[in-house]
Amino acid sequence: RVCWIKDIVVAVTGENMEAMKSIIQKYQHQRISLVEAGVTRHRSIFNGLKALAEDQPDSQLSKPEVVIIHDAVRPFVEEDVLLKVVSAAKEHGAAGAIRPLVSTVISPSADGCLEHSLERARHRASEMPQAFLFDVIYEAYQQCSDYDLEFGTECLQLALKYGHIKAKLVEGSPELWKVTYKRDLYAAESIIKERVSRHICVVMDTKEDGNHVGHHLEEILKNELNPVKVTSQLPCHAGRDLEQIMSEQCYSYICVNVMTSDFEETRKLVNMLEESNLSILYPVVVVSVHFLDYKSVPFDQKMENLMQIREYAKEVKKRNILLCGLLICYPQ
Amino acid sequence: RVCWIKDIVVAVTGENMEAMKSIIQKYQHQRISLVEAGVTRHRSIFNGLKALAEDQPDSQLSKPEVVIIHDAVRPFVEEDVLLKVVSAAKEHGAAGAIRPLVSTVISPSADGCLEHSLERARHRASEMPQAFLFDVIYEAYQQCSDYDLEFGTECLQLALKYGHIKAKLVEGSPELWKVTYKRDLYAAESIIKERVSRHICVVMDTKEDGNHVGHHLEEILKNELNPVKVTSQLPCHAGRDLEQIMSEQCYSYICVNVMTSDFEETRKLVNMLEESNLSILYPVVVVSVHFLDYKSVPFDQKMENLMQIREYAKEVKKRNILLCGLLICYPQ
Repeated sequence: RVCWIKDIVVAVTGENMEAMKSIIQKYQHQRISLVEAGVTRHRSIFNGLKALAEDQPDSQLSKPEVVIIHDAVRPFVEEDVLLKVVSAAKEHGAAGAIRPLVSTVISPSADGCLEHSLERARHRASEMPQAFLFDVIYEAYQQCSDYDLEFGTECLQLALKYGHIKAKLVEGSPELWKVTYKRDLYAAESIIKERVSRHICVVMDTKEDGNHVGHHLEEILKNELNPVKVTSQLPCHAGRDLEQIMSEQCYSYICVNVMTSDFEETRKLVNMLEESNLSILYPVVVVSVHFLDYKSVPFDQKMENLMQIREYAKEVKKRNILLCGLLICYPQ
Repeated sequence: RVCWIKDIVVAVTGENMEAMKSIIQKYQHQRISLVEAGVTRHRSIFNGLKALAEDQPDSQLSKPEVVIIHDAVRPFVEEDVLLKVVSAAKEHGAAGAIRPLVSTVISPSADGCLEHSLERARHRASEMPQAFLFDVIYEAYQQCSDYDLEFGTECLQLALKYGHIKAKLVEGSPELWKVTYKRDLYAAESIIKERVSRHICVVMDTKEDGNHVGHHLEEILKNELNPVKVTSQLPCHAGRDLEQIMSEQCYSYICVNVMTSDFEETRKLVNMLEESNLSILYPVVVVSVHFLDYKSVPFDQKMENLMQIREYAKEVKKRNILLCGLLICYPQ
């Protein structure tokens, strides 16, 4: 996703190694190397750093000037904050993202009573990503005590303790939060859903009939689904604009089929989607709409067509494309 | 929700006072008094305490032995933790819920660099609810300086500073988190959705035909929607069990209508739901299912019935009951 990052080293526990390898293969990741995770956070990071160091016998990666340390449980990190911590690390030797505290931090006594409370405005939560001059953090880890590696949590603290580097602190955005509790999974799911449903593309043959029901559908969607962006496109044979839409990561399509062609338009659209590889990360939704004047076309015949779509939908679901057919009868 | 809480005082800003009054009226809350919020957190709490104090001229509430202080942005507080902080406050004078820190807390220097980082295991996040002997916290607030009232955030700290009370700290559950960012709204929405969709009640006449399609529906739901609880009930005229289900806060109903009665069963169910007042807090969903052997019943006639449901649905939506009709055609 961020083109200027050269290598990505992921620390994975032994039991998840095979699953991780198959994920890397499935999503065709090119820059990822795997190392065995340690039993603590600091040991895992140290293993990752070793994979990038020159002094390790089996290292296949070249030593970078700057290394970013990040948590997989903060999946929504933006390129912007990565750039900021890297620039600050080049200048200061170390840098990390921070956020304001949401709750007051207190220090309990041994018997579980309030000892004192910290002034919230004078403290910050240390988040990820953090960036370091590679030599600074690698040398700090090499000097770490076993106690540090077992019970420590803060990389910036290691750079301070062993490298005497005062890390530059960079204000991060709320998106840096750590997916920790079940509610965070809910939030993450909703954020992804929101991102992939920002844009709906209505595919229909606009030239044929300016007063077509498809146009009304587009208007209704625009009004009802605001602020979702709704655009319309000519069918697949008519131009290269659809490829443009797919490259802009539009995951929702409504394909309006003309009466005569059955669902030929839908098949063409799905073929294009398959070729675009868009559905590799998130599912693509295609609603195949069929308008039916049920006074003139036999109901049974149209049902037959929908059954065919159902079979086709089963097939394309394997490629992460969720197809459903919608039969709209008129006049009501 | 918690029957042993006698009075609830809510601090509301002037601009939201009318909206809050209408919410209280709409949801028929009996124990709530409103006070004007202050410009800071501590000033709002102080105003709330004054409403419960005996020494205030216009106080209409009686002074409690123990007062709980809570944030409206922590809506998922459980009765259990309320009990724990109240018991601890009776014994110690003050008590508050705490949670482990999710991120390391650091202290920045004036130029935005790391000064030092706190050992995460030795600190906790102070959350709400907190409870106090009323006299302890009220007297603390009366002694507060303007600086405390403007810049302070921690009530336990006031009890310590002015009342020399070391508050008892009580481990809270993850549900106590503060709805702060947009992602927290997503999480809150998902938690509510999960709570109201734990149980689906299928209403159908089981006596009539043991091999009825409705039974297959129930089986399929049980398999597909696990771990959602699926139960079936006789129609409304047959017993008082449905009232029991409604009192257990089941918000989702599937009403299977027999062919001859049109959607008489659905109407009866909706009437019972209206009488139960269940939909006052969250919407109740009713799916009215109609099985249609489309070789024997004219399609047009059944469409007519569905149109009637649509009109009926518009009407009951005003009472927060979301009704939709589902026509299942067979043989396929």
